[in-house]
Amino acid sequence: SKETNSDWITLNVGGKYFTSSKSTLITKEPYSMLARMFAESQEGYLFTPSDIDSNNAYLIDRSPTYFEPILNYLRSGQLIYDSNVNPEGILEEARFFGIESIIPTLEQIVNVQKTPRDELPLT
Amino acid sequence: SKETNSDWITLNVGGKYFTSSKSTLITKEPYSMLARMFAESQEGYLFTPSDIDSNNAYLIDRSPTYFEPILNYLRSGQLIYDSNVNPEGILEEARFFGIESIIPTLEQIVNVQKTPRDELPLT
Amino acid sequence: SKETNSDWITLNVGGKYFTSSKSTLITKEPYSMLARMFAESQEGYLFTPSDIDSNNAYLIDRSPTYFEPILNYLRSGQLIYDSNVNPEGILEEARFFGIESIIPTLEQIVNVQKTPRDELPLT
Amino acid sequence: SKETNSDWITLNVGGKYFTSSKSTLITKEPYSMLARMFAESQEGYLFTPSDIDSNNAYLIDRSPTYFEPILNYLRSGQLIYDSNVNPEGILEEARFFGIESIIPTLEQIVNVQKTPRDELPLT
Amino acid sequence: SKETNSDWITLNVGGKYFTSSKSTLITKEPYSMLARMFAESQEGYLFTPSDIDSNNAYLIDRSPTYFEPILNYLRSGQLIYDSNVNPEGILEEARFFGIESIIPTLEQIVNVQKTPRDELPLT
Repeated sequence: SKETNSDWITLNVGGKYFTSSKSTLITKEPYSMLARMFAESQEGYLFTPSDIDSNNAYLIDRSPTYFEPILNYLRSGQLIYDSNVNPEGILEEARFFGIESIIPTLEQIVNVQKTPRDELPLT
Repeated sequence: SKETNSDWITLNVGGKYFTSSKSTLITKEPYSMLARMFAESQEGYLFTPSDIDSNNAYLIDRSPTYFEPILNYLRSGQLIYDSNVNPEGILEEARFFGIESIIPTLEQIVNVQKTPRDELPLT
Repeated sequence: SKETNSDWITLNVGGKYFTSSKSTLITKEPYSMLARMFAESQEGYLFTPSDIDSNNAYLIDRSPTYFEPILNYLRSGQLIYDSNVNPEGILEEARFFGIESIIPTLEQIVNVQKTPRDELPLT
Repeated sequence: SKETNSDWITLNVGGKYFTSSKSTLITKEPYSMLARMFAESQEGYLFTPSDIDSNNAYLIDRSPTYFEPILNYLRSGQLIYDSNVNPEGILEEARFFGIESIIPTLEQIVNVQKTPRDELPLT
Repeated sequence: SKETNSDWITLNVGGKYFTSSKSTLITKEPYSMLARMFAESQEGYLFTPSDIDSNNAYLIDRSPTYFEPILNYLRSGQLIYDSNVNPEGILEEARFFGIESIIPTLEQIVNVQKTPRDELPLT
C-alpha cells in the first residue's frame, strides 16, 4: 500500500475534520471556492489555499454540520440530508462555497417550508 | 501555503473544539464577550482572554451544543438551527456571550413555543 | 495569557471529555457528588476524587449523553435539553450525581410523559 | 489521586471509545460476553479478551450507536434511549452481548412497533 | 492479551474512523468493494487497497453518516437505522460499495417514501 497523501486533503471546517480527495473537491463544481483552492494550474495553485493547522488540515471558518451534505453532494452528485437537518443551513453553505448546481433546488425546498400551508398552490 | 495561526483561534467550549477566525469572533458583534476577548487595542488585548488548555485552545465553560448556532451566526449572519435543537439553549448562550442582535428573535421564538395554542393571537 | 489549569477540570464521562471550571462543579449544588469531589477543605479534598486517565481527566462511569444537560444546568441554572433527548436519562443522572434541585422538575416531566392521555387531569 | 487503571476499561466499539469500570461490565449481567471477557478467576481471565488497539482499548466489532444504551443499562439498571434511536438496534446488541435481562422488554417494544395499528389488541 | 492487528482494520471514511475486523468486511458480501479491498489471495490483495493516512487507516472518500448502517449490516446481517436517518443516503452508499443484498430493500423503502399517499396501492 503506497501512501500518496498529495491526492488526499483534510479540511478543518470550524473545528471538525473532513477527509476527501482532491478530485472530489475539484471535479463536480469546477468554479466553486473549493475547486479554486485545490486545482493546480501550470503555475501552481490558481487560488491561495487557506492556512493549515498543526495537523496539516486546511482551515475553513464555516459550519461543519451544514458542510457535510455539501461534501457528500460533491462525492455522489446527490443532495441527501437527514430529516432533522435544516436545509437553510445547507443553502447558506452552498452559497458560500459557490456550489451553484444545488442552489436552485435548495432555494425551492426552503421556500416551500416557509410558505404557510394555505398559501401553497393547489396540486 | 503560509501558516498564520495568529488569525485563527481554537476555542475549547465545554470539552469540544471549535476553530474560527479572529475576524469572525470580533466583527459581527463588537461588544460581545468574544469580541472583547480577542480584539486587540494598541495596548494589547482589551480584555484578558480566558485560560488555554494544552492544545492552545481558549477554555470557555459553556455548552458546546448551543454554542454551535451562535458561532454559525457570527460567521454567516443567519440564525439557523436543526429541528431537534432547543432554541432556549441558544437564547441562554446568546445572553451569556452578549450576542445582542439575535436575542429579540430568540425570545420571540421561545415565547411562541411556550404559549398554549389557544392563547396565540389570531392571524 | 497565563495557564492556570488548576481551576479547570476535565471529566472523562464514559469515554467522552467534558471541560468545566471547579467553580461550576461546586457552586450550584454544594452537596452533590461533583461538588464533594472537587471542593477543597483546609485538609485537602473532602472526598477522594475518582481515578484519572492518561489525559489527566477524572474518570466517571456514567452516560455522557445524559450528563451533558446536567453540566449545562450547573453552568447556567437552567434545565434545557433537545427534543429528542429522553428526560428519564437526565433524571437518572440527576439522582446519581445528587443534583437535588432539578429532580422534582424532572420527575414531573417523566410522570406526565408516562401517563396515558385520557388519565391526565383536565386543565 | 492514585491512578488504578486496572479497574477501568476502555472499549473501542467499532471505532468509538467507551470507558467504564470492570465492576459495571461484570456485575449486572455475570453471564454476558462482557462479564466473561473481564471477570478474572484464580487462573486469570475466564475468557480470552479481545485484541487491544494502540490506545490499549479492547476492540469490539459492533455498532457504537446501539452499544451506548446497553452500557448505560449495565451502569444504571435502566433501559433508557432517545426518541430517534431504533430499539431494533439495541435488541440486536443485547442479543450479541448476551444481556439477557433486557431482551424480553426490547422484543416487546420492537413487536409493538412492527404491528399495524388495527391489529393491536384492544386495551 | 495478544495484539494481532492484522485482523483488525481501521477505515477513515470522510474523516471519521471506523474499526472492524477483516472477516466482517469480507464474509457477508464477498463481491463488494470492501471485500475486494481486504481479501487476500495467494498472490496478496486481489485489489489494491486505498491509501492510508498517518494513523494507518484506509482512506475512503465517502459519507461517514451513511456508511455506519452499511457497516452494521455487514456485522449483524440486519439493516437497522435511526428514525432521523435518510434511507436514500444508505442506498447511495450500498450502491457505491456494492452491498447488493440490501439494495432491493432500500430501493423499496425509498420508493414508498417518495410516493404521494393517495397513489399508494390499497392494502
